This record gives sequence, C-alpha cells and structure tokens, in this order.
Amino acid sequence: MPNDIQALQQALREFARERDWEQFHSPRNLATALSVEAAELLEHFQWLTDEQSRTLAPDRVEAVGAEVADVFLYLLQLADRLGIDPIQAARSKLEVNARKYPVELARGSSAKYTDF
Amino acid sequence: MPNDIQALQQALREFARERDWEQFHSPRNLATALSVEAAELLEHFQWLTDEQSRTLAPDRVEAVGAEVADVFLYLLQLADRLGIDPIQAARSKLEVNARKYPVELARGSSAKYTDF
Amino acid sequence: MPNDIQALQQALREFARERDWEQFHSPRNLATALSVEAAELLEHFQWLTDEQSRTLAPDRVEAVGAEVADVFLYLLQLADRLGIDPIQAARSKLEVNARKYPVELARGSSAKYTDF
Amino acid sequence: MPNDIQALQQALREFARERDWEQFHSPRNLATALSVEAAELLEHFQWLTDEQSRTLAPDRVEAVGAEVADVFLYLLQLADRLGIDPIQAARSKLEVNARKYPVELARGSSAKYTDF
Repeated sequence: MPNDIQALQQALREFARERDWEQFHSPRNLATALSVEAAELLEHFQWLTDEQSRTLAPDRVEAVGAEVADVFLYLLQLADRLGIDPIQAARSKLEVNARKYPVELARGSSAKYTDF
Repeated sequence: MPNDIQALQQALREFARERDWEQFHSPRNLATALSVEAAELLEHFQWLTDEQSRTLAPDRVEAVGAEVADVFLYLLQLADRLGIDPIQAARSKLEVNARKYPVELARGSSAKYTDF
Repeated sequence: MPNDIQALQQALREFARERDWEQFHSPRNLATALSVEAAELLEHFQWLTDEQSRTLAPDRVEAVGAEVADVFLYLLQLADRLGIDPIQAARSKLEVNARKYPVELARGSSAKYTDF
Repeated sequence: MPNDIQALQQALREFARERDWEQFHSPRNLATALSVEAAELLEHFQWLTDEQSRTLAPDRVEAVGAEVADVFLYLLQLADRLGIDPIQAARSKLEVNARKYPVELARGSSAKYTDF
C-alpha cells in the first residue's frame, strides 16, 4: 500500500496526464514554480514582526496553509520527476545537519546562521 | 504510530530544542529560510534548457536531492509551528485545482499558466 | 551622452557578446537568475531581527553590496532585453503607488501591508 | 544636481516619511519584499519556453515592466538604507566578473553557469 506521499504523487501524475500538462512539467519549470510559490508563502510574513508571525489569526493560518500546499505539491512533483524520495532525502539531510551542528557547539547560538 | 512526516517533524522539534534554536524558528524566519532554499534548488536549473533539466547527471540529481530535503525540512517545521497538516492541506488543494481546471477545458493548454 | 544606467547596460551587452553568452540570456533565464540573486541577498538577513538588520557590521554591508550589485546587473540586462526603461518604469510605479496609498489614509498604518 | 537614481531615492524617502512607513522599512523587510517582487517578476516567465520569453506580447512586456519597477524601487530603498551606491556596486561587480570569466576561457561556454 502506498504511503501518503506516494499516494499524492500518484494523484499528481494522473492530474497532469489527464490535462496533458506533462509537457510543461520539466524539472526546470517545476523548480521555478516551487520558488514562485515559496515567495507567495513568504509574502504573508513580509511586513510582520517575528512576534506577529507567531500569533497569526486563524484565517491567515488558513491562507498560509494553501500556500504550504502549493509548495508541497510542486516539491512532490519535482521529486517524482527526478526519482528523489523526499522522506529519505530529508532523513539523510537531518543526519548531515546533526554532524554539522553538534549540540554542545550550537546550543543557544545563532552563529550557525550568521557564519555561512 | 506516527507516520513518516510526523516522525520527521518530531525529530526536527527535538533537533531545535536540543540546540535552543526555537527562538530563531518563528514562522516568519522559517518562511524566509524556505524561500532561500527554494532559490538554491532553482539555482541548479537556472541556465539549463527544459530538455537538459529532464536528463540531469546522477551527481546533479544528488545535489538537487539535498536542496529538495532543505526545502522539505523547512516546510515541515513551518507547518508544525502553525498547526498545518501538510498532507491534508495538499489533498484539499488538489481538489480545489481539480475544480479550477476541469479536464475538458484544461487539456493540452498552457492557458492555465499564462492567464493568471 | 549615456547616463549611468545606459552606460552599464552598454557594458553588460559587450560583456555578454564577447563571451557569446547572449544565447543564455533569454528574458526567462535572466528573470530566474535575478530571483536567485535576490534570495542570496535575502540570505544575509534571514536569521536577523529587524533591529540587527538596521545595524549591520561594515563587512556585512560590503557583502550585501555585492548581492545588491548582482540583482541590479540582472535587472538592467532583463530591462534592456525587453526594451523597458527602468527609471521611467520606477517613476510610473511610484505615481501609481502615490494614488493607491494616499497619505491621509496610509499614515502610520501597516494596513497596506497586511490587507493584500 | 542629483542623478536619476538619487532623485528616485529622495522621492522614495519622502514617500515613506509622509506615510510614517520608515518603521516597516528595515533592511530585512526591504530585502524580503525585494525577493517577493523578484518572484512576481519570475512568475510571468515560469511556464514559457526560452523562445517564448524572447517574443513577449506588448501587454505582457508592460506587465513585466511594472514588476521590474517594483524590484528596482525596493532595491533602491535597501541600498539607500545601507549606504550602498548601486551604480558603484554594479561597476565593481562587473570588474570582478571580467576577471573571473576571461573572454578566452568563457567564450561560448555555459561552464560558468553549471560549475558553480
């Protein structure tokens, strides 16, 4: 039985095939669309303070959720096209990050963030 | 038992807590980081033709996979902070898109893409 | 005598022609590169508070200046390719914005920012 | 007499002051807004082929011009806030690029683009 992500990728494949949209869905185009959607997500936060962003009104959360979905759907399609398993890629990256930022060195410091 | 996404979100929560990084992970900051990572993903494709992007060399696919992971990890953290279920949001959006682009009208046309 | 911007655009045209890079400089590719550079600019600010961003160290300002330059150079090339006069376009947009956000309504309010 | 860019920056300063918007215009916020506008510019090209992007219809060029203006206006405000001279920064970067990509090595090759 496919897991949630595989089921979504299967549904997206059918969605594109039924509409003959595979021709538009090159990895390059999908990466571009993903980046555009990520900016639409960011737009919701662009004039907010960090504090305001932690206490969004429910209707704003719902609008953000729709943008999260757009980013996610393009990410799943891009991964599918390139044969990348997003869950496995995320796990590997998390292990890389754990080695890169050891707890004892990274604790409470934003140095990670400002040094790269 | 948590599914794959919930397990990743749990691991990310622990990762941030151990490093005392929750202070940096406001929704606003996470949305910004997500957008920056999406651009790093796009950077791999920026000078390629659509055709070249369909036939990436394996080492390029691996590098793209690492960027896919970065985007995914920030997306999961942002969704977690805002109480958004990414799978459910994606399913809802797919239904919205199905109503918005009926097969018979959208077939083979990029009008969807150029009209909005 | 060409103004500063026209002189830069002329230099950029020669730069691309000498390297036979015009083939890569489609408006689409230039818009992609511009967006990638804008994210590299944003990356400098992604974990900073608003306050920290107002008091950058000189070496950080210099690094930001290099990214400002990258964005500007792609913007000038894109405008040049499409026959857009960036100064004139900016002036027109500023007039549009002045009508859109009358002083008496917009004063001291971030409503502009959160309502769209 | 101020040049075109200085005149625009002066007008932008007055625009923000009249509306008491300086409080929102931290370098961080301006960099975020710039990135969001760059994505709106990119959105016009996201499903186009390179060839289609070279032959835009006049109304599309006009719409792109409005986004070029938005990017430019935020770039000028960000530079102004940080004391960066955009023309000078662009000239310096062009010199750096000329050393980095010598004509004899870079000619006709997209290696520049795929190697970084």
